[in-house]
Parts: sequence; C-alpha cells; structure tokens
Amino acid sequence: MQLWFTEPHTDTVQFSIKVDRQVHSEVTDFQRIDVFESFEFGRFLTLDGYMMLTERDEFIYHEMITHVPMAVHPQVRRVLVIGAGDGGVLRELSRYPEIERIDLVEIDERVVEVCKEYLPQTAVGFEDPRVHFYFEDGLKFVRAPEEVYDLIIVDSTDPFGPGEGLFTKEFYGNCFKALKADGIMVNQHESPFYPDDARAMQRAHKRIVESFDHARVYQVHIPTYPSGHWLFGFASKKYHPVKDLDADRWNARGLACRYYNTNLHKGSFYLPNYVQTLLEAVEE
Amino acid sequence: MQLWFTEPHTDTVQFSIKVDRQVHSEVTDFQRIDVFESFEFGRFLTLDGYMMLTERDEFIYHEMITHVPMAVHPQVRRVLVIGAGDGGVLRELSRYPEIERIDLVEIDERVVEVCKEYLPQTAVGFEDPRVHFYFEDGLKFVRAPEEVYDLIIVDSTDPFGPGEGLFTKEFYGNCFKALKADGIMVNQHESPFYPDDARAMQRAHKRIVESFDHARVYQVHIPTYPSGHWLFGFASKKYHPVKDLDADRWNARGLACRYYNTNLHKGSFYLPNYVQTLLEAVEE
Repeated sequence: MQLWFTEPHTDTVQFSIKVDRQVHSEVTDFQRIDVFESFEFGRFLTLDGYMMLTERDEFIYHEMITHVPMAVHPQVRRVLVIGAGDGGVLRELSRYPEIERIDLVEIDERVVEVCKEYLPQTAVGFEDPRVHFYFEDGLKFVRAPEEVYDLIIVDSTDPFGPGEGLFTKEFYGNCFKALKADGIMVNQHESPFYPDDARAMQRAHKRIVESFDHARVYQVHIPTYPSGHWLFGFASKKYHPVKDLDADRWNARGLACRYYNTNLHKGSFYLPNYVQTLLEAVEE
Repeated sequence: MQLWFTEPHTDTVQFSIKVDRQVHSEVTDFQRIDVFESFEFGRFLTLDGYMMLTERDEFIYHEMITHVPMAVHPQVRRVLVIGAGDGGVLRELSRYPEIERIDLVEIDERVVEVCKEYLPQTAVGFEDPRVHFYFEDGLKFVRAPEEVYDLIIVDSTDPFGPGEGLFTKEFYGNCFKALKADGIMVNQHESPFYPDDARAMQRAHKRIVESFDHARVYQVHIPTYPSGHWLFGFASKKYHPVKDLDADRWNARGLACRYYNTNLHKGSFYLPNYVQTLLEAVEE
C-alpha cells in the first residue's frame, strides 16, 4: 500500500508527501485537524488540509518569527502570541529569561490538545509557567488591551477560515493600540510567488501600513510551504528591524539556533525586486 | 482529461504540475529532453525528467548566477559558460557591453536546438554575436585553457548523468587554471535541505575548496526546484563576493532586474546556521 498526502499549492500545482500513517483526525467547531507520520518530514500537522508544520522544518518558521523581533527589542517583558497552537513560538520565547508573561490566544483549544499529544517537539513550549492561555478569537481579544505588550507575534493560519479576522485592518489597528510605545508586531505574511498568495501578502501589508508607520517584510526558506518562499511582517512604532538590531547583545546570549543568526537577520530583509514592487504597490 | 507532470523531490516527496500538453519529447545521445506547456509556469524544460527551467521563475536562477559575479568583477572581458543550453545565462550576460567574447560549452547540441524552437524567452541569448558555441563535454574543454577567462559560469544539471563530470575535483581544478589571476567561478551548487541534495552540495563545496582559496556559497528562492531553497557557489582567486561588491558601479548601469539587486546580493551570502554547518564540515 501507498498513502500520500497531497496539498494543492495552486489549482494546477500539487505537493505530495508519502505518509506512513495518519495518527489523528478530528473535526472541531472551527476546523479539521489532522496529524500524519511521514518518512521525509517526521510528523506533520494540517488544518483544513493545509500544512501547518512538520517536525523536519518547523525550526525555520519558529526561529525566524521569534528571534528577529527579540534581537531588536532591548527588553521584552510582556508578549502576546496569537495562534501558535502548536507551541513552537512559545518554545523559542521560553529561552529568554527577561520575559515575564506570555499571553497565548488560540481560537481552537483542540489544536493545543492535539499538539500536546502528538507533537511534543513544539508542544514543549506550553510547559513554560509564564504562559497564560486564552482560548478565544484573537480578533476579539486585542480589542481591550492598551499599551500593554512589548511584542505581539501573529502566528496565524492563512487568511480564510478561522484565521481570516487576523488579516483585517481592525485587527492590526488593535494590535497597534495594544503595543507599548516601543512595541513590535511580527506576523505570518504569506508568500510573494503564486498569485493568490501574493494578493494575500499585499492585502496584509496594505492593512499593516495603514496602522504602523514602520512596516517591513522579511523572507525565509520554508520547504513545506507553497513555493518555499515565505514572508514575515515586522511592524513597530519605534524600531527599524535592521538598524536597531543589536547583534552583539543577542549573540552574547549564546542561544544555539539551527536557522537564525544575526547576519541572516539582516539579509532576510533584503528582498527580490519583484517582491519589493508588490509591497510598494500597496504602500501609497 | 487531466495531464500531470510529477517530479520526485525525494523517494517520498513529489511535486506535480498540471500541464496543458507536451510540446516536445526526444531522446538524444546524452539524455531525454521534454518540453511541456503548463498553466501555472508557462513552458518548462526537463532533462531526464528533472525540472531545468520554467518560463515563470527562470529569471531568478539566471539573474542570480550572472549578476552576482558581474557586480563584483570590475572588468569582465572573456567568459566561459558551461551547460546553459537554454540560453538564459547568455541573455543576462548580453546586457554587459564590456564583455568581448563568451564561449558556450554545451555537451548536447539538441538542448540548444530544442530551446531555440520552444523556449524563445531564454533562447534569445543565443543571438548575441559574442557567443561562440562548443558542443562538447565541459570536463574536457577546460583541460586546455590557461589564464584565459575572467569569469566561468557552471550552469550544470545535477551531479549524475551527463552533468556528473562538472562536479569533480579535476573539473574545478581546471577551471581554476583556466581563470585569470582575478577570475571568478560561479556554479550551480545544489540544495541544502533534502539529504541527498545536501550531500551533493557538500561534495561540490569540498572539491571547490580544494582548488580555490576563496569559496563562498549564496542562496536563492527557486520555487520549482526541490525544497525551493537553492544554492550557488562563488569561488575566486582574488575577490570576496560581499566586500568586493561595488554596488554603486553596478547600479550606475541601470540594468532592470526582477530578482537581483545589490542589497539582495549581500543578503544572499548570509546563510542559515544549518547550511553553514554543512559547508564547514567539508572545509577542513
């Protein structure tokens, strides 16, 4: 027998992974959750059939969405994490002793439970005692806080289904309000390559630029995401992601990473012309 | 009817493209050549079933293998291009008026003929009158010349089949000898992600380091190659690819590119830690 998981990257492009077995499947109030055991990527999690993470390459996503803002902001004490039901962002944040409190807002508690059971590699992040759980819609959660957070990490799914609200002007505006005067927001920013993804990227960028004076985008290689070319957004009221990088301070921490380093940090903000053009088209 | 082209990226990972029709297929003395018309990527060329280029993303490969060395070397007059039977490298080189002569060595003349007929977007490069064609094995061609070239571009297929000789110590050693005292060699350097590709990358790097004192690697996003994370090698007797980049000089040329720019040039040499570790393991 052969068992293959296939994800459409566009209507006419598919990415397929041979799996040993499906280890979990359920339909929650919000979405379908599946976990598979594969030969090439170890275990991987899908939501509504879309790849969220694999054990083999999740380090790239989680290191790059976490350490980039942490290497810029000089003193992060309070963090809001939205989405991230797998725990990977928490695992990376837990390496910083100066953080006092992490509020995790995940709409679907079942994602956390499933990851705790089947994906210990990332779910280890849930064990940090500084984490406070809020199982609710991130869009609603951010309406209340004002100037509370040093860092907001938006580890969302794609801009349809339960993650849709996390790509709206209202959401980004409330994130701005929830951040302190020198706060940073980092977000999953889609991909520039396939046309539908590029449009989602442009929409997200346009709405972030409407709320934040300083909004930049950085790129990473994520082999299991469509095209492998993925982006994160970096928005701040104060900091420039490259000029305000304090490489010496971050390197003095001695944190071992498999992807992130402070040179790569700088390099990841130097984008291809075609990506820059797509972003500038919505910056007017 | 549905017609799908599928390329195995590993034994258990596949990438599939829905095609409208196959526009050409033949078996030459060296390999099988196919050209397909697809919905997402336009026309694409495969050799022995492996993706060589698509009309949609070939600009990334061809700009990055050409403009990086051209922005470092101050005066390239004579170029040797090995492989590149599609003409894409020639198209990019043809934008530099100071180049006096380009020697193209392609083992399989049929690749050139097929590309001339079906892939005019890259084959336009063959029209440059400075190009001299040699339809022979690159491994043999480089045995003779001594201190002739300012730049050698090794646009090879993967290290098996007809491209195998282009990944040997003998080949790289002869490239070193064929270069002038300030010459640069750039080569297709495989990918760091999937284990078989990573081993090929390490082998190539080890052999280049044995011949060149200065050998660095840079990365690009190529969506239609396995993992989307692809590398090029930059080796020189004299120049450092970042310190000796003359951004002002290159930008004064006013060459419009869709991927390359001089900031990205620098950024592309800042590699993830895991890639750096793989490279350093063979640099001893």
